[in-house]
Amino acid sequence: MSDTENRTEIAELGEFGLIRHLTQHFKPINPSTLKGVGDDAAVLDYANKKIVVTTDLLVEGIHFDLMYVPLKHLGYKSVVVNLSDIYAMNATPKQITVSMGLSNRFSVEAVSEIYEGIHAACKKYGVDLIGGDTTTSGKGLLISITAIGEAEAGELVYRNGARANDLICVTGDLGAAYMGLQLLEREKKIFLESPSVQPDLENQKYIVGRQLMPEARRDMLENFKSWALKPTSMIDISDGLSSDLLHLCEESGLGCRLDESRIPVAEDTLKMAMQFSISGTTAALNGGEDYELLFTIAQSDFDKVQNHPEISVIGFMTEPEKGRKLISTGNAEYELKAQGWKAF
Amino acid sequence: MSDTENRTEIAELGEFGLIRHLTQHFKPINPSTLKGVGDDAAVLDYANKKIVVTTDLLVEGIHFDLMYVPLKHLGYKSVVVNLSDIYAMNATPKQITVSMGLSNRFSVEAVSEIYEGIHAACKKYGVDLIGGDTTTSGKGLLISITAIGEAEAGELVYRNGARANDLICVTGDLGAAYMGLQLLEREKKIFLESPSVQPDLENQKYIVGRQLMPEARRDMLENFKSWALKPTSMIDISDGLSSDLLHLCEESGLGCRLDESRIPVAEDTLKMAMQFSISGTTAALNGGEDYELLFTIAQSDFDKVQNHPEISVIGFMTEPEKGRKLISTGNAEYELKAQGWKAF
Repeated sequence: MSDTENRTEIAELGEFGLIRHLTQHFKPINPSTLKGVGDDAAVLDYANKKIVVTTDLLVEGIHFDLMYVPLKHLGYKSVVVNLSDIYAMNATPKQITVSMGLSNRFSVEAVSEIYEGIHAACKKYGVDLIGGDTTTSGKGLLISITAIGEAEAGELVYRNGARANDLICVTGDLGAAYMGLQLLEREKKIFLESPSVQPDLENQKYIVGRQLMPEARRDMLENFKSWALKPTSMIDISDGLSSDLLHLCEESGLGCRLDESRIPVAEDTLKMAMQFSISGTTAALNGGEDYELLFTIAQSDFDKVQNHPEISVIGFMTEPEKGRKLISTGNAEYELKAQGWKAF
Repeated sequence: MSDTENRTEIAELGEFGLIRHLTQHFKPINPSTLKGVGDDAAVLDYANKKIVVTTDLLVEGIHFDLMYVPLKHLGYKSVVVNLSDIYAMNATPKQITVSMGLSNRFSVEAVSEIYEGIHAACKKYGVDLIGGDTTTSGKGLLISITAIGEAEAGELVYRNGARANDLICVTGDLGAAYMGLQLLEREKKIFLESPSVQPDLENQKYIVGRQLMPEARRDMLENFKSWALKPTSMIDISDGLSSDLLHLCEESGLGCRLDESRIPVAEDTLKMAMQFSISGTTAALNGGEDYELLFTIAQSDFDKVQNHPEISVIGFMTEPEKGRKLISTGNAEYELKAQGWKAF
C-alpha cells in the first residue's frame, strides 16, 4: 500500500461516503435482486427457487499476507472462495454481501483496489453486491463475505448423497495453490533478508496464479447440465483433497478407495513440490485452496465424464466397514487422514 | 475470561469439532430452513415470499469491550442488532449465519458462552442458525453475522417512502444505551486506577441493560399488523436519532421538523446525562445503539398509534426546501446534524 500515489483518509469520507464511493459501480444485474445497497437490508425475490447461503471470514495474517497478495487479487479471491461453496451445492450464486474491517493504515485508494477485485469477480460470475458493513478494525484487514444463490429443488447436491461404488471425480488439478503459497512464502523470507534480491516468479505463473487468483468451477455446472448429470454428492476443495473427501465419506456414511496414481497434479506443481522435498500427492492431499469440485457419480454415468480433460476419476466409494483408504502408486494401502486444521 | 474454571483449548477440538460443539443445540425450527449447518452452504425455501438480507461486523475494542461486556450478552446483542435491521424492513427474521474470528486467548468455554447468548436470542426471536465460519484472528474477537428474513411483497417498508406531512414516530425511549456505555466506561477507568473500588451498577440496571442486552422491536411489527398500519418509511436507530432520521429524509427526498420536547428519554437516562453534563436530547440524538424503530406514518393513521405508551410522535416530514430542523424546547430552530461516525 505504501506505493499508492494518492492517499485519502477514510475519515475524510466517513462511513456512508466510503460505502457510496465503493459501491457506486455495482449495478444489480439479476432479476432476483429487488433492492441492493442502501436500506436496512437488501431485498431478494427467488420466486419458487431454493435459496443457498454460505459465508466466509478472512483475516489478515491468517488467511492472507499483504506483503505478496495484491489488494485487487485479494478482493477477487474473497468472492471466489464463497462462490465456490455455492457451486459445490450445484447451485448458481446471485448475490453477495461484503463486510470489511479496516485499520487506519488503509486509505480509501487501498480499499478501492480491494473493491475493484470484488467488482471483477462479481462481473465475471454474474453476481450482485447487495450490502455489507464497513468498520474500523484495531489491527489489520478483515473481510467477511456471505454469498447467496439459487437452485431448483431437484438440482441441489449435498455432501451426504454418495452411495457405495459411486465413482469419485475431481475437476482440474490439485496442490498448485499450496505450492504457490510455499513459493511466495520462501521469496518473502529471502526478500526480508536481502531486499536487493528480486523474486523471480515469472516462470511460476501457474502455481502463483492458482494461489493469488483462483477461479470457481462454474463451467462444470454448465457441463453437468448439458450432460444431464447430477452428482450424488459434492464439495469444493478448500481444505485439501483428504479432508474434503473425508467429509463426503462422513456425511454419506461410507468408506472410500482413493487411487494416488490418478490424482491430477500439474507439472509445475510437481516440480515445485520437488524443490520443497515433498511429493505432489502430499500437496494435493493436504494443501487445500484448490477450489476444484470433488464429487461422486453413479458408475452408470461414467461415460458422461470420461472424455473431459478437466475431470479425473480418482477412486470410488465403498461400504463403511472397508475404511477410508489411499492406495499408493506402489499399491500399498494407507489410512486416509485429514491434516490438522491449519488456521488454529 | 480469566475466571472460567475449565479451559479447553480450541486446538483440542479443531475447527470441525468446535463447530459441532457450538452448534449441537441449535435445531432449526422454521419450515423455511431446509438445511442448516453442515454442508458447503445452507438451503432455504421462502416459497413466494421476498427475502431480506442484512449483515454486521463487530470488532473487539471498536464495538465492544470485554472488560465489562459479558460474553453471553455479547452473543445475544450481536444477533439482536442484525434482527433489528430486518424488523426495520417490516420483515420477519428467520435465519442467521455467524462467523467468528478468535485469538488463542479464547477457550472453548469462552466461545461456548458467546454461543449461549446467540442461542438465547435465536430462541427468543424464532431464528435458526444455519451456518458460519470459525477461524483464528491474530488479535481479539470478531463477530460477523448475516440475518435473513421474509416478508410479503406488499409488507416491505423502505427508507424512501416518506411523504411530506407524514408523522415521525419512534418506539420506546432513546439515549439509554449511550448513557449506559458512558457509565460502564467511567467505572472501568475507576476500576483500572483503583481495583479495590467495586463499581456500583445495581441502581443503573436500566441504562446498563439497554447497552449490554438490547432487544429488537418485534412487538411493534405485531402491533402494526393488528392495527393494519403500514409505515411509509422505517429505519432502526443504531447510529442515533439525528443520523437515522437524516437517512429517512435523504432517501425520501424530504425535510423534517423534529420536536425536542417530544423525544422520549427515560428518567434514568436523564439523570445519568446530568452527571455527565450533557442533555438527554444530546444522548438521544447522537448516542445510538437504541435499536428502537423510527418510522413515518400518514397523518390519517395517527389514531392507530396515539394511545400506545411505547410510541411517541416526535415531529413531521416537510417539503425538502424547508430543511431538516430540530425545534428546541425553547422554540428555537436548529439545523439537524449527524455526528461523525464514531467507528472511524
